[in-house]
Amino acid sequence: MFYLPNTMANWPWPRRINPFFEQVKVEADEWFRSFNALSPKSLKAFEKCDFEHLRIACDLMIVYFVVDEYTDVEDAERTAEIVNIIIDTLNNPYRSRPEGESILGEVIRQFWSRAIQSASPTSQRHFLDDYITYLRAVIVEAGDRDKNVTRDIQAYLSIRRRTVGAQSAFAIFEFDLNLVDEVYYHPAVTELIDCVAELVLIDNDLASYNREQGAGDENHNLVTAIMFELGLDRSGAMSWAAAYHAEIEAKFINGLLKLPSWGATLDAQIKQYLNGIANWARANYCWSYEGQRYFGNRGREIEKTRLVPLLSKARRDPNMREQNIVVADLCL
Amino acid sequence: MFYLPNTMANWPWPRRINPFFEQVKVEADEWFRSFNALSPKSLKAFEKCDFEHLRIACDLMIVYFVVDEYTDVEDAERTAEIVNIIIDTLNNPYRSRPEGESILGEVIRQFWSRAIQSASPTSQRHFLDDYITYLRAVIVEAGDRDKNVTRDIQAYLSIRRRTVGAQSAFAIFEFDLNLVDEVYYHPAVTELIDCVAELVLIDNDLASYNREQGAGDENHNLVTAIMFELGLDRSGAMSWAAAYHAEIEAKFINGLLKLPSWGATLDAQIKQYLNGIANWARANYCWSYEGQRYFGNRGREIEKTRLVPLLSKARRDPNMREQNIVVADLCL
Repeated sequence: MFYLPNTMANWPWPRRINPFFEQVKVEADEWFRSFNALSPKSLKAFEKCDFEHLRIACDLMIVYFVVDEYTDVEDAERTAEIVNIIIDTLNNPYRSRPEGESILGEVIRQFWSRAIQSASPTSQRHFLDDYITYLRAVIVEAGDRDKNVTRDIQAYLSIRRRTVGAQSAFAIFEFDLNLVDEVYYHPAVTELIDCVAELVLIDNDLASYNREQGAGDENHNLVTAIMFELGLDRSGAMSWAAAYHAEIEAKFINGLLKLPSWGATLDAQIKQYLNGIANWARANYCWSYEGQRYFGNRGREIEKTRLVPLLSKARRDPNMREQNIVVADLCL
Repeated sequence: MFYLPNTMANWPWPRRINPFFEQVKVEADEWFRSFNALSPKSLKAFEKCDFEHLRIACDLMIVYFVVDEYTDVEDAERTAEIVNIIIDTLNNPYRSRPEGESILGEVIRQFWSRAIQSASPTSQRHFLDDYITYLRAVIVEAGDRDKNVTRDIQAYLSIRRRTVGAQSAFAIFEFDLNLVDEVYYHPAVTELIDCVAELVLIDNDLASYNREQGAGDENHNLVTAIMFELGLDRSGAMSWAAAYHAEIEAKFINGLLKLPSWGATLDAQIKQYLNGIANWARANYCWSYEGQRYFGNRGREIEKTRLVPLLSKARRDPNMREQNIVVADLCL
């Protein structure tokens, strides 16, 4: 049994659901089902996931889910091939994909060709920059996996800030804004974005640790990096991570208060964007417990008790088994 | 290595030192030294302790320290004998102690005969009630130790709320007040007193856990009760304790806001008393790290990093050894 700290007890942004979520989710799911990109078992796992934003955001969540499932099981070389397909597609969203290519190409093409019809030009550039940074980091992660690398805390965070993919996902908060580069790349803003990316990665690594260690895939996880560098036991590493989380929360809230001004219009826009990403940190945390990916049907109970039975590598929680089979299916 | 959670990060009462502390401490220490109640080594350990209140409070801290050192190493029968001496002395503060009695009797007699010269009659009664409750619990603790009993969390808390001795120590905040029983024993007030006693016991058990497990004496410790009942690892049990601590903090602050009124005079008095005990929770926490009893000269560093090297039972931290010898000396 280990203790999973409640990292979000003091985060000022509460849990909220977009009122149009149910309606838009149906549309996005129907679109994705049309590809038959997942085996029946994978599809069943996919349908257990709840996504939390409107159409373009729902599509993007689907894209993250599929890219993650396809690359998590590949070596660096094969991951790089997948990444090249994705980048080529993003750069040529109106060109048909070649015969016999992974279905991923066409998924991405339809997603992006629809997104760019409504997304502001600045947001499109930022998304492409950040998403490609994420994809390149996924190749590094696959290489670490090939070589069974364990990183220390700083080295791990530097790669994990990118593999978590949070920054590119934050694009959903600027598709309707015109955040000029002077604002988007201002050090005071990038620091805040980095903060939320770190909150998201800490919460994701804490929530996914059990599943990953059960699958023998916990090397790319902050808990492992902390245990490795500081010699802490498992729960001790999680406590350390929670304390670091609290530091980053304070840094974010402090940074918000000291933001420079770029005039009323841009100030209102960056405020909306930053409020969006702060909500994302909450949404990510809620999803970890309310989705079934990490805790099967015990998420709500674990969110309350914080007590998690450690999955042994031999005998896994029956609630988790299906998702592990999903991973196995995708290996074929 | 284990991780010691920062339980007091959000407690609204800050660290403060009484401006007359240095002056009064010298007087109290001189009084105590006059007994030669401790061996030279014990005295050296004693002089490392810093006490944080005025004369009567300093005296009382000395009394706690000595009673704890004398009873911690005894079985239930011998502890009961010591307790009987103390109770007899408290009831007869102006009668000479018999020849050949433990020096504890005379220490207590001088402390209490001085205290009752200035303490209000209500505070004297409350102190006697609460201190005798504490002493009786110390006998139960000694019995647990004899039988190597491990309690579950609720059973442990029910005895530990009394062995921690906090409630009787809170008398120092009412020696100059006239808190009538209607207020002092009102359920809304006793709940707040219980809250602070729990905060103090949690913080004391977290801070003392390493020293106690090094000495093989960790059965009377909340961390052990949590590990025993919930099957958590060591740091996990500490995280659980810290989360429980946060619950009690919220209960205290909430309870303060909902206190009934007994008229302006009594309201001001109970407010002063409750402010005092809330400060005590902070002082207890600071003392754990700034005194050398639990972390030798590494307290300030551990307060910052929260990383504690686990003392092995065979090889102990040299900083701790002297205090363990103190315990051994007192066994003779």
